[in-house]
Amino acid sequence: MAATTELARDLAAIVGDTHVRVDDGALAAYARDATPLFHARPQAVVLPGSTEEVAAVLRYATDRGVPVVPRGAGSNLCAGTVPLSGGIVLVLTRLDRVLEVSAEELLARVQTGVTTQRLADAAAREGLLYAPDPGSRTVSTIGGNVATCAGGLRGLKYGVTRNYVLGLEAVLPTGEIIRTGGRLWKDVAGYDLTRLLTGSEGTLAVITEATMALLPAPEDSGTGVAYFDSLADASRAVAAVIAAGIVPATLEFLDHKCIAAVEEFAGLGLRTDAGALLMFGDDGASRTVASTLARIAEVCTGAGALEVTLAEDIARAEALLAARRCALPALSRLGSLTILEDATVPRHRLAEMVDRIDAIAARYDLRIATFGHAGDGNLHPTCVLDPDDAAAVDRAHHAFREIFAAAIALDGTITGEHGVGAAKLPYLADRIGADQIALARRLKLAFDPAGILNPGKLGS
Amino acid sequence: MAATTELARDLAAIVGDTHVRVDDGALAAYARDATPLFHARPQAVVLPGSTEEVAAVLRYATDRGVPVVPRGAGSNLCAGTVPLSGGIVLVLTRLDRVLEVSAEELLARVQTGVTTQRLADAAAREGLLYAPDPGSRTVSTIGGNVATCAGGLRGLKYGVTRNYVLGLEAVLPTGEIIRTGGRLWKDVAGYDLTRLLTGSEGTLAVITEATMALLPAPEDSGTGVAYFDSLADASRAVAAVIAAGIVPATLEFLDHKCIAAVEEFAGLGLRTDAGALLMFGDDGASRTVASTLARIAEVCTGAGALEVTLAEDIARAEALLAARRCALPALSRLGSLTILEDATVPRHRLAEMVDRIDAIAARYDLRIATFGHAGDGNLHPTCVLDPDDAAAVDRAHHAFREIFAAAIALDGTITGEHGVGAAKLPYLADRIGADQIALARRLKLAFDPAGILNPGKLGS
Repeated sequence: MAATTELARDLAAIVGDTHVRVDDGALAAYARDATPLFHARPQAVVLPGSTEEVAAVLRYATDRGVPVVPRGAGSNLCAGTVPLSGGIVLVLTRLDRVLEVSAEELLARVQTGVTTQRLADAAAREGLLYAPDPGSRTVSTIGGNVATCAGGLRGLKYGVTRNYVLGLEAVLPTGEIIRTGGRLWKDVAGYDLTRLLTGSEGTLAVITEATMALLPAPEDSGTGVAYFDSLADASRAVAAVIAAGIVPATLEFLDHKCIAAVEEFAGLGLRTDAGALLMFGDDGASRTVASTLARIAEVCTGAGALEVTLAEDIARAEALLAARRCALPALSRLGSLTILEDATVPRHRLAEMVDRIDAIAARYDLRIATFGHAGDGNLHPTCVLDPDDAAAVDRAHHAFREIFAAAIALDGTITGEHGVGAAKLPYLADRIGADQIALARRLKLAFDPAGILNPGKLGS
Repeated sequence: MAATTELARDLAAIVGDTHVRVDDGALAAYARDATPLFHARPQAVVLPGSTEEVAAVLRYATDRGVPVVPRGAGSNLCAGTVPLSGGIVLVLTRLDRVLEVSAEELLARVQTGVTTQRLADAAAREGLLYAPDPGSRTVSTIGGNVATCAGGLRGLKYGVTRNYVLGLEAVLPTGEIIRTGGRLWKDVAGYDLTRLLTGSEGTLAVITEATMALLPAPEDSGTGVAYFDSLADASRAVAAVIAAGIVPATLEFLDHKCIAAVEEFAGLGLRTDAGALLMFGDDGASRTVASTLARIAEVCTGAGALEVTLAEDIARAEALLAARRCALPALSRLGSLTILEDATVPRHRLAEMVDRIDAIAARYDLRIATFGHAGDGNLHPTCVLDPDDAAAVDRAHHAFREIFAAAIALDGTITGEHGVGAAKLPYLADRIGADQIALARRLKLAFDPAGILNPGKLGS
């Protein structure tokens, strides 16, 4: 590997002096992403200003065998952008142009560093909806969303990032600039590299531009909340909603520990005596939304809800959604270390899974609260603890290993929307098996013969 | 390569005597699929009865270097299952069990040889919808649908096969049985092999089982038809429908040549004096369907439609849809050779593309009529000619090369839903470029080191 001074000089020749950082502050900042407990310092931080500069950096890195970790906002929760082997952190936030938004074609073309929120806002200005809504959307970039196949609250009805990627511009580790897919809803010309790169977590290529599908903005939306004695009751209500032929835009739940934390944090008037809260929402034509919410309310009541309320106006609906969205900050206040996971199980096994999580938490003497997306079985068990309590941190690792094993045993997965990164790589073989791990390594080599791109993550 | 007698004996040891065919009739039948002009005889036809038998055949073939072409119904239109290099045609129609349909989980798990129609029917019996509806659905298999990422009439609103594949069981050419994805809407554990295999046209692995997402069946559906002076007018109407925030389930068009052929074939009372016919349909809650169709009718009238009619009942709606679906058989009657293609362009360039097709047809003195999916820009230019007229066949090849080039020039693609196969492989580099062709070859090698699986197709 090149010495830092040489590396800095060579990189500056590509991107310019001001866009290479080797100072302590930068190296410390880019040693971490939003994932607790993982950190590793890079040798240099590089902020390219164009696809061509990205290609030149990658060619250079492949020639010299320097690791490169592509990164947007670093808001991922799987240590997907921690530079485990040092080298270069390639920060793509300068590629931040919204290149076009077409109401006629129902698509937007953006550079990789555009935030999810900016894309959503640009779409909204044209009367369009960018459907995926990951929790980090105000800071996360589209490049990061694509690289992790980000999910969000609207997954059941609208799907995840994968369902909206029409085409990508990406740079191979060897420097070739490729354009996959395009502007079409139907295109089967060649292997589906667009979807293969989606969720590849910066290990196969560096995404520089994305063409994303948009939808006409729904006319109206609405939200309601139902309280239940237990998560088992809430889970039965969710099954009954689906059985009634309703696929609402959102179906979120909080367990009783989350309700208490959110209420203390935000003071929204939530019922803290309930065992579970189910938040439901839909969008579409005004009449349809109203009748769908009324039917969901009816189904919840039939399934034994303690109380069901429909938000009377947008302000109240947004307050309710904020309650769900602030589950993580609310829990984070309870301890200075928050480990947020996203084991996922088939929808009807949600209550069973939360029971298992609670039993595991009790056994390891840990505080784990769970919230998540009931509609798609995507759970976010969240452990709050003291990072200086090494024994507790160790118990948490054991507990999460058991939680992942429980998810797999229930036909689920170790990660629904956060990604594998470094954090869940040790559990990946349990989920996909040794043959797929071996195949992934061969795939990785087909893209990255020198193994420079995000080493120690997927494909390792 | 092994001698035929030895091959037959070895394969019979795996699948049993009755499931190996080396007779002239079988070899002639499996020399072709639904694509005209392409044929090549295999050495043997093998019908395995289980995933394990598939694995054993593939291990044997990799050991001996025998080509294997996996095949379902052979209804593809891209010569995707013609055994160009001889060897084994692996027919998967004995794997024909519907393993489960779950209304609770909104999914079905089927073996690869189940037909699209059987899956759709099994879903319908549980009040569910299998959304993709490729034209060949009564005979095509789910394995073939996944292998080609089949599309259909409902692509704009519902997406294509890719959007419904949750998980696959597949056998690698080296014999390992892998299970990708699973039963979850959100699952990002590892590279997205599920989507990579979807559309890989039997060149990377043999799909033996698929878990497909279902939707609650819509309460109601409806259809209407609008006639226009020209395709340009119809295309403007399509743009106006989208601009009005409507994404209907179907938006199909026939050009005037197709209208005439269909009317002569089926006698449905279509207006043969019109330049273009636009068929529109939607499904959902009854009230919504009625108001959506009324709005589309209004938009079409505003865009200058000669006449707009809503089907007054299901019988009439089905007759109209049948009109669209019989475009191909109707055209086929006009000549004994029918070449059906599926160049695709962005929706708003549809009329421009059809103009180019008409100009190319005139220049080469060919009869090419065009119909297709206006909603997603997926065109089916269809050339009818006499196969014994070698000069005309040659002109048709030149014409289609120009049609593909025109589609690419308009930001389109050489195939929207039929696949590349052997038929469009010569044009693939024009669409995706030399770097992606080279990458595809490396990907293919990662799966198929001996190069036995469907040689001469994608990845070659």
